[in-house]
Amino acid sequence: MAKAPVLTPQADDFPRWYQDLISKAELADNGPVRGTMVIRPYGYALWERMQQEMDARIKKAGAQNAYFPMFIPQSYLTREAEHVEGFAPELAVVTHGGGKELDEPVVVRPTSETIINEYFSKWVQSHRDLPLLINQWANVVRWELRPRVFLRTTEFLWQEGHTAHATYEDARAYASMIHTDVYGDFMTNVLGIDVVLGRKTAKERFAGAINTLTLESMMGDGKALQMGTSHELGQNFAKAFNTQFLSNGSEREYVWQTSWGSSTRMVGGLIMSHGDDNGLRVPPRLAATQVVVLAIKGDEPVIAKVREIGAALEAAGVRVVVDDRTDTPFGRRAVDWELKGVPLRIEVGPRDLEAGTAMLARRIAGGKEPVSVDALAAIVPGLLEEDQALLLRQSRERRESRTAEVANLDEAVEAAATGWGRMPWADLGPEGERKLAEQGVSVRCIVAEDGSVPATDDQPGNIAIVARAY
Amino acid sequence: MAKAPVLTPQADDFPRWYQDLISKAELADNGPVRGTMVIRPYGYALWERMQQEMDARIKKAGAQNAYFPMFIPQSYLTREAEHVEGFAPELAVVTHGGGKELDEPVVVRPTSETIINEYFSKWVQSHRDLPLLINQWANVVRWELRPRVFLRTTEFLWQEGHTAHATYEDARAYASMIHTDVYGDFMTNVLGIDVVLGRKTAKERFAGAINTLTLESMMGDGKALQMGTSHELGQNFAKAFNTQFLSNGSEREYVWQTSWGSSTRMVGGLIMSHGDDNGLRVPPRLAATQVVVLAIKGDEPVIAKVREIGAALEAAGVRVVVDDRTDTPFGRRAVDWELKGVPLRIEVGPRDLEAGTAMLARRIAGGKEPVSVDALAAIVPGLLEEDQALLLRQSRERRESRTAEVANLDEAVEAAATGWGRMPWADLGPEGERKLAEQGVSVRCIVAEDGSVPATDDQPGNIAIVARAY
Repeated sequence: MAKAPVLTPQADDFPRWYQDLISKAELADNGPVRGTMVIRPYGYALWERMQQEMDARIKKAGAQNAYFPMFIPQSYLTREAEHVEGFAPELAVVTHGGGKELDEPVVVRPTSETIINEYFSKWVQSHRDLPLLINQWANVVRWELRPRVFLRTTEFLWQEGHTAHATYEDARAYASMIHTDVYGDFMTNVLGIDVVLGRKTAKERFAGAINTLTLESMMGDGKALQMGTSHELGQNFAKAFNTQFLSNGSEREYVWQTSWGSSTRMVGGLIMSHGDDNGLRVPPRLAATQVVVLAIKGDEPVIAKVREIGAALEAAGVRVVVDDRTDTPFGRRAVDWELKGVPLRIEVGPRDLEAGTAMLARRIAGGKEPVSVDALAAIVPGLLEEDQALLLRQSRERRESRTAEVANLDEAVEAAATGWGRMPWADLGPEGERKLAEQGVSVRCIVAEDGSVPATDDQPGNIAIVARAY
Repeated sequence: MAKAPVLTPQADDFPRWYQDLISKAELADNGPVRGTMVIRPYGYALWERMQQEMDARIKKAGAQNAYFPMFIPQSYLTREAEHVEGFAPELAVVTHGGGKELDEPVVVRPTSETIINEYFSKWVQSHRDLPLLINQWANVVRWELRPRVFLRTTEFLWQEGHTAHATYEDARAYASMIHTDVYGDFMTNVLGIDVVLGRKTAKERFAGAINTLTLESMMGDGKALQMGTSHELGQNFAKAFNTQFLSNGSEREYVWQTSWGSSTRMVGGLIMSHGDDNGLRVPPRLAATQVVVLAIKGDEPVIAKVREIGAALEAAGVRVVVDDRTDTPFGRRAVDWELKGVPLRIEVGPRDLEAGTAMLARRIAGGKEPVSVDALAAIVPGLLEEDQALLLRQSRERRESRTAEVANLDEAVEAAATGWGRMPWADLGPEGERKLAEQGVSVRCIVAEDGSVPATDDQPGNIAIVARAY
């Protein structure tokens, strides 16, 4: 008799599989206020590792971390017309504080362009103060009507970068560098997720931006997920908040700005990119636990051996956990580590001791075979890198095999039923985009003929990538 | 003619000196909503380093990081009677979300005992799930009527630990271990701040706790600052939220709990402990920048030399910044680094090159003298450790020299005018405590005769430490 599956199979019901996995792998719970979430330790460890890797790249890009208040006077939001229009429907409003009704209600930040510009306008005086490159790690609130854990939550965690530059060109180059060297590099080389880098259409742009660069990825069910965005803000917020500098030529000029964000949504992307019917698969470079060494039984020599193997792997630079909780049945622990997606499991029982071997189970590549204990420290780092590469390859192959060239709206909708469609933007245009939207299909981004990020929407040969999206 | 001081001298007006320093060293700004603050990059870098050092200690103590929603249903707060009484006056309340009035208003967390217990009661089933050790890094809101940057702000950043245990003894031991091994060790050995570890009186206890352990430090003006607290919660929240476990003997029992927190207030404590009339002094083990190497002039060989020195120090494991911004006058940069309290400045000009020396200025120990460039990498680590020890010694000597043994209330108030008073708790008692409060003097903590943390308030020989406090 076949074992009952721990999770609803992906093929049966992908959204249900996603919820099952989040619950069974103890990644998160729903919060008591609708749309909020509790990120449990194992889920939070994924986010912490994302933060570490991203933070290093952000600092390398020259930005410094700071912290701005989460309470923003309602009046700030209204200063940039498109911005308030975009965010007003999603705001949480604090009307009472310290037991009294407030004179002016404050909103909980949905994003921080407004409050940050208020301070940029104080801090920036001369061209010597530019570029001003700031990042913050924070929680933000956008009231969600159709919440889904990690993907769309009323409160989420993110980083938001905000920069001010002396010239249009400098701001543009910086937004692009964040797009490729920070987000693109991190998602490709750490998350092992294939991302398409492109630009958003006018309809999909950030409220207040003159250009939005995006990274789009295909999930396991063929739908798209926006993994991060980098915006050119032009001088829109600078004019609304009077952020000016004294140029070399002693003229007062408005600064040119960028903003860019990535969030706990990436955890959802990780799950839906790499997860399978047995659970999560965590890419080794991200994993807080790359290898777990399990004692099958609680005999003293077994316990001693798993600790010895753990120490040897740690010395080899591997992030390892020793699981010697032998009061819990081995099978239950093995299923749990599989659910949690730890790349390699090394299992040691009494019989292995005699043979000088251990069973090595590979969560990502699959398979299980005995290996010499003495060889472990030498082979494990290489296996982890193989697994890292495999996840990226699988993610890329999925996108390639499930993307169709389409010539008209009907074909676009059909392609979006199982994957993505690629259609010349000149043929689709804003009018076609509007019609697709009626059927729940959106233009995820526009890419150039050669796959690069085009400088404008209208560059000849531009391709629109259309899909259903989370 | 003497230079005008950059800061108001401490002796003239300590609170003004504090504000001047925060502004001139670019640590923080006031936020637009009263009581909130903007933490600027240099101030945030102090907090980031505190987080790193604390987080490592918290993980070593076995706690795992997680994240709980900041929005708490108002009804949760009311379940623990003392807790709601303590926090109700300070709450920020969200009444509108997504353009609609909410059915039930939600509060922004002032602390998370309530929402966390709601989940602990789901996660904890059997004694095998205990101890459950959770920490979160988060922002919290307590509406402040008399805000002061870093010390009392409406929104602040902190870590809050929350644990559940099977027995009273286990919870008690864990709260004590956090008090000494996490907070005490970090504040003493990284912040270089002398802290007195004691227990709070019933009057000063956390709302809902059965015991509060505290770390109190004397600031430069003789007042006290509470630097962190660790609470035994008993079964108060467990009963309010029905957090039970199946014991070994198969009885359902309520868990025993602890909670413990430390916040951005520590940045204020750092400033007021170590700052002087020339600015901040950052302890080397905390400093993100331990050494700055300054080019006095922009000559090419000078620039090459400062970079060479910077590289050599970095190779020696020193956290170093090279300041070759020679378009800004040297004097201005030197004053700025002094204000920011970077422990060591190494200054290189054209004349130094010939002599093979550099000027070494010590921000903490004081003094400035030429040293051989070749010797720098060898001597700098030792100087930094000397400076680290010196700050702690100065902090301890201040507390010792400004603490008086007092025998009655009048003497206690007099001692609190310039420092701390020590009075037998048996003589002071809750009644004396109430009378002191009328004059703005509080019992900071109770310590045992031998300086240890007493098991109860009434242990014979217990001493009350009384002071004015931030």
